[in-house]
Amino acid sequence: MKPIGILGGGQLARMMALKAHEMGLPVAVLSEKPTDPAAQVTSLWRAGSLSSRAVLENFMRECSLVTFESEFMDARLLEELEASTGTQVLPRPNDMARIQDRLSQKTLLLAAKVPTADFISVTTQSEADAAFEKFKRQVVFKKRRFGYDGYGTFVVKTPAELSKFKTAMSKDQFGFIAEQFVPFRRELAVMIARDRRGNTHRLPFVETFQENSRCLWVKGPLKEDSKFKKLGQRLEALLGKIGYVGIMGVELFETRHGILVNELAPRVHNSGHYSLDALFEDQFSIHLKAILGLQIGPPRPLAKGFAMYNLLGHSMNPPKWKSNPAVRLHWYGKNETRPGRKMGHINALGKTPEEALRTLKKRAHDFNL
Amino acid sequence: MKPIGILGGGQLARMMALKAHEMGLPVAVLSEKPTDPAAQVTSLWRAGSLSSRAVLENFMRECSLVTFESEFMDARLLEELEASTGTQVLPRPNDMARIQDRLSQKTLLLAAKVPTADFISVTTQSEADAAFEKFKRQVVFKKRRFGYDGYGTFVVKTPAELSKFKTAMSKDQFGFIAEQFVPFRRELAVMIARDRRGNTHRLPFVETFQENSRCLWVKGPLKEDSKFKKLGQRLEALLGKIGYVGIMGVELFETRHGILVNELAPRVHNSGHYSLDALFEDQFSIHLKAILGLQIGPPRPLAKGFAMYNLLGHSMNPPKWKSNPAVRLHWYGKNETRPGRKMGHINALGKTPEEALRTLKKRAHDFNL
Repeated sequence: MKPIGILGGGQLARMMALKAHEMGLPVAVLSEKPTDPAAQVTSLWRAGSLSSRAVLENFMRECSLVTFESEFMDARLLEELEASTGTQVLPRPNDMARIQDRLSQKTLLLAAKVPTADFISVTTQSEADAAFEKFKRQVVFKKRRFGYDGYGTFVVKTPAELSKFKTAMSKDQFGFIAEQFVPFRRELAVMIARDRRGNTHRLPFVETFQENSRCLWVKGPLKEDSKFKKLGQRLEALLGKIGYVGIMGVELFETRHGILVNELAPRVHNSGHYSLDALFEDQFSIHLKAILGLQIGPPRPLAKGFAMYNLLGHSMNPPKWKSNPAVRLHWYGKNETRPGRKMGHINALGKTPEEALRTLKKRAHDFNL
Repeated sequence: MKPIGILGGGQLARMMALKAHEMGLPVAVLSEKPTDPAAQVTSLWRAGSLSSRAVLENFMRECSLVTFESEFMDARLLEELEASTGTQVLPRPNDMARIQDRLSQKTLLLAAKVPTADFISVTTQSEADAAFEKFKRQVVFKKRRFGYDGYGTFVVKTPAELSKFKTAMSKDQFGFIAEQFVPFRRELAVMIARDRRGNTHRLPFVETFQENSRCLWVKGPLKEDSKFKKLGQRLEALLGKIGYVGIMGVELFETRHGILVNELAPRVHNSGHYSLDALFEDQFSIHLKAILGLQIGPPRPLAKGFAMYNLLGHSMNPPKWKSNPAVRLHWYGKNETRPGRKMGHINALGKTPEEALRTLKKRAHDFNL
């Protein structure tokens, strides 16, 4: 049996590989170093660069089906290799392409009537000036490609900030979008999945909390009023409309004027890690089932409240950890700690989301990062 | 960081390795073939025989700590290698030795006042005759070593059966015990764990159902009246008395005269596989925490009822499986199906144990073994 292939060796790839093993699947991992988190958890690790055509082609020939942990790849190359190797990549490279570019992602959201902040494309300095005025000097410029965790995002509210942005812009090759700056009350997130047969399901809406543009914790489920339900339906419809296959992470802003989609990610997502312990079936298993042609079902929560807390490095010291039976530890096996690096996460359940989060905050100090 | 080492490459080793990876631990597996279930799920697979001193010694030198999936090993050799390599084996080889021999296992149960069927040691033909009379022609002879799944067990109720047993006995080198035959209502099981700090916890009592001496399903939790609680306490005390470290599987008979211990296994156990989806923390994680020096806690059930159903091969056909969102699939990645071979298992939750089991029975036909 040919293995399922995972492009990338980070923690998302590792957790996908572990869940694929749980289902009995052989798993091949393509990454640069044998110490990469996902490289350690399979006998079928392959060394190489995700940007090399030859490396990717060899890897895809070896696999029955390929998926990825990051949408920042050359989608057109993957499409060509699908044709030459006969091995499918799921989610489809075309969907990866559409989402990895913030401009086409925004267009996709608009077409599916999913609420999102107003935006325009910005490729020249004069377009940047025009955006600054159009959005009444409350504007966020975002790199069209390769932005993440706040990197590539510029909040501009003064002429000085605008001028600083334009300097950065002149060094970039992919262009930007300008968005109306949206003051939000909370950040939220939701995972949507669609399998090859067209079954679409949504996981619970959750609140996410960012510190220095990095996710620190997630709690849920949120009480779902009609506006949540409607947004969920629109997002499910979006996946159906493009025939998406796999799981998708959706980051949201809760504002005075409703919930807006901030960003899509065509893959498993940090905001869904709670599902490893809080749902009968976790996001990694759901994603794998969806791309393998197996049936996915509605989420089945195991408790009234759940939370996830990221264990971030804050020094260069080697990681030390303790464990406590009140929390489930997921540790990624990274060899080096760096400030802000995601080293692992802990999950807890509770009678309410808040209770679960309190448990995690109490235990986070057990991890001397 | 030196890896934790697992002796053996079967499904128990595989599930232990996956849970060790979840905690971020590097895991080395020692087994004969690269296609062994556990060999596939780590980059640190080592080829070799579990009965070779040189192989074991090299493996133990490479590891920080070693555990095992089967108690049928040379415990004295492991003890010698602990001394020569400085690497500890847990559960301790001495406990493995005590439990792998049914005679010393029985003695251990008696000393801890744990109820078990009356027994005597049988090494000669005349002792076999005497046992037959002592137990009023209702006797079970069991090989002292290497018996499993009914293999090595002889129920003797007639002189013809006795004579057949004596022929088998003459070919065996390890001796037998003779037990009073106990008509039982149901078979039950329970897992007990003790960590290095001495914390001892018990998982719920469950009912197990055997077909052709092989476990077919498990359901639980059982309602615990005072006799269950008392037995649980005695078993916990037994672990404390010998200073056992790790998890232990306990097979039980429910009889007219109370619950008797049938057999101990110093390791994770098939009757505990439900815990992967029915408890906040599964038996594999509990075992690993216990031997690693981490704190274990009381079990936290995720539902009022749970069940596990073994997916057994019944042909030589290559396995095919479907999935259904109502069940969680654990498939062991074995390359060959054989009649009766454990290929995987499915878990379900429900409002009652019976409801969970019904769900599994309905879905078992999805697996064309």
